Amino acid sequence: MKMIRALSTHGGNVREHAEIRGISIESLLDFSANINPLGIPESLKLAICQQLHLAERYPDSEYKALRKTLAEYHQCLDRHIVVGNGATELIFAVTEAIKPKKAMLLIPGFAEYRRALQKQQCEIVDYQLSEDNFFQPDRALIKHISADLDCLFICSPNNPTGQRIDHDLLNEIVDICRQRQIYLIIDEAFIDFAGERYSLISKITANPYLIILRSMTKFFAIPGLRLGYLLNTDDNLLHRLRLEQQPWTINSFAELAGRVVLYDYGYIDATHRWLRQEQAYLFQKLSQFSTLIVYPPAANYIFFKCQITDFDLQDALLEHHILIRSCGNYPGLNNNYYRVAIKKRSDNKALLIALHRIMMNHSLERK
Amino acid sequence: MKMIRALSTHGGNVREHAEIRGISIESLLDFSANINPLGIPESLKLAICQQLHLAERYPDSEYKALRKTLAEYHQCLDRHIVVGNGATELIFAVTEAIKPKKAMLLIPGFAEYRRALQKQQCEIVDYQLSEDNFFQPDRALIKHISADLDCLFICSPNNPTGQRIDHDLLNEIVDICRQRQIYLIIDEAFIDFAGERYSLISKITANPYLIILRSMTKFFAIPGLRLGYLLNTDDNLLHRLRLEQQPWTINSFAELAGRVVLYDYGYIDATHRWLRQEQAYLFQKLSQFSTLIVYPPAANYIFFKCQITDFDLQDALLEHHILIRSCGNYPGLNNNYYRVAIKKRSDNKALLIALHRIMMNHSLERK
Repeated sequence: MKMIRALSTHGGNVREHAEIRGISIESLLDFSANINPLGIPESLKLAICQQLHLAERYPDSEYKALRKTLAEYHQCLDRHIVVGNGATELIFAVTEAIKPKKAMLLIPGFAEYRRALQKQQCEIVDYQLSEDNFFQPDRALIKHISADLDCLFICSPNNPTGQRIDHDLLNEIVDICRQRQIYLIIDEAFIDFAGERYSLISKITANPYLIILRSMTKFFAIPGLRLGYLLNTDDNLLHRLRLEQQPWTINSFAELAGRVVLYDYGYIDATHRWLRQEQAYLFQKLSQFSTLIVYPPAANYIFFKCQITDFDLQDALLEHHILIRSCGNYPGLNNNYYRVAIKKRSDNKALLIALHRIMMNHSLERK
Repeated sequence: MKMIRALSTHGGNVREHAEIRGISIESLLDFSANINPLGIPESLKLAICQQLHLAERYPDSEYKALRKTLAEYHQCLDRHIVVGNGATELIFAVTEAIKPKKAMLLIPGFAEYRRALQKQQCEIVDYQLSEDNFFQPDRALIKHISADLDCLFICSPNNPTGQRIDHDLLNEIVDICRQRQIYLIIDEAFIDFAGERYSLISKITANPYLIILRSMTKFFAIPGLRLGYLLNTDDNLLHRLRLEQQPWTINSFAELAGRVVLYDYGYIDATHRWLRQEQAYLFQKLSQFSTLIVYPPAANYIFFKCQITDFDLQDALLEHHILIRSCGNYPGLNNNYYRVAIKKRSDNKALLIALHRIMMNHSLERK
């Protein structure tokens, strides 16, 4: 199964797995991409079908209307927002604009930070999050934030571990980075699942070293549309960031999405209701497997370790037409770690049933 | 009117012009963006509305189905195609992958080549196209293609001049660049209007130095969706190009467009019928203005020089709620040059009527 794993740098690549297995995409249940299972909001579906003509014009190269909507939502200034073709574009644009010589990454973490830093020939210091501490950063991290660092990436809730960094500790890190003139890039791609109250957006004012990354594709189930944004208050940095960007990177329908969905309160409420229920349900049920160590989730996915040695759980679940994310290719993890998205009850049940069968067979074989 | 001009690096920025004039976008007739006036194909509208769920999945990171469709259309191998978020993404990716030290640009030409080369700190040699020769490259160009060049960009039909480079001369340039190991990037963004028979795609085989850029946004009226692609046969270069790209740069609906519209023969035929008629009509009518020197168009836009000194025709037409492209910010041109898209008959007539009034007023004022 080496090949499958080598192919998947990220979750969500259902096609290649389906293709290799010779099954249809539709028959593969995808737990590998952390996308809201409520699907694309009806409000957006309607907006797109009513405004298909938007595709006939170049998007506004400054995306003023979109930035205005985002600024109103976050109660900040629109000139402090840069929008991107998914948050990924902005990860690359930030590293291009900062041109860091030395950066720190917390591992395990999202793969694209490393790729973007490597593109800048930046020296990378890895800070290994401790398994004993549930892969949560603790105060020991602070003394490693040395003044020779140019930037530090922190993802909260972290991907793939699903852990939200302690709020007080994070605030302390913000202050230290500011004092030491280290750009702190906080990736809040999943914070809308955890709760907007945990966002550090309110802290950007008068702190040029704080950069917040946001994604709209997970919560609003539009990974195919691509929309992310960044908040910062350093006019000089913002200017360099915009210079790095190519014109019209965000397409018209992603732009439309950004203007429509934030005010779809029905969808947002329904999402929080679903998450409250299913997060608790799936976490509790997974925790009942004696072979799994399950980490309490802060967002819409659950991270766990399978304690059976020499066993490929992703492979075993694919036999049941279920795709989960194997975390073996994350630096700092190994093939025993997995991540599953939290989905609707029926799908979550299907995962649990398949897991039961696999574990039962496995223990029978061992007897 | 300096301000307006400084704002518009490209055509199509209707919003800013409408905003500055305090008029609605809808009431401004846009001749500045070279987009097929038949609008987004009905086949694509239907496909998007029927497949809105595509937005709920990450696009295939390798865009296999899209590349397969394009390869079938062009009768080449799908591994020789790289797709991008508009051709612009690929202009930047190509220069990142080649990392040229010295490059040649034909001026006037499309602004993004220069921006992409400058990002690589590349020395740029400008080859000024001669007004006496209708801004067409002639054989004199050949001796300037020196072996110390790393790459050469040629846009055919050229933007903004609308001139297609002579086919024999272009073939000769292809051979010379290959011999001298100079990457030749031929931007065929408007070739589908001129005729697929003029494309050099059939020449890519066994020529690692030939790179063809294509755009789908002009012909199929989807600039808001963003879709371009590149053809080349050098596996090593293609590999580096893909490494330069961020994941999922093309969104699901652009990907869908690429798979749907190439086989919409009804739309393609209707476009060619419209263009044949309106290209001849608008060229002939514009040529009747004694104050204008009009260049015969090879694509869906017309380039001309206004011989009235100290006169801002863009500004004058804005009074009539018509936006044309002023070409004053192209290196090698000045404020006397303009570009207009060819639109539907009624719009073309509106432009001509406005021009008549302006010219009449102007000659009355001078009397």
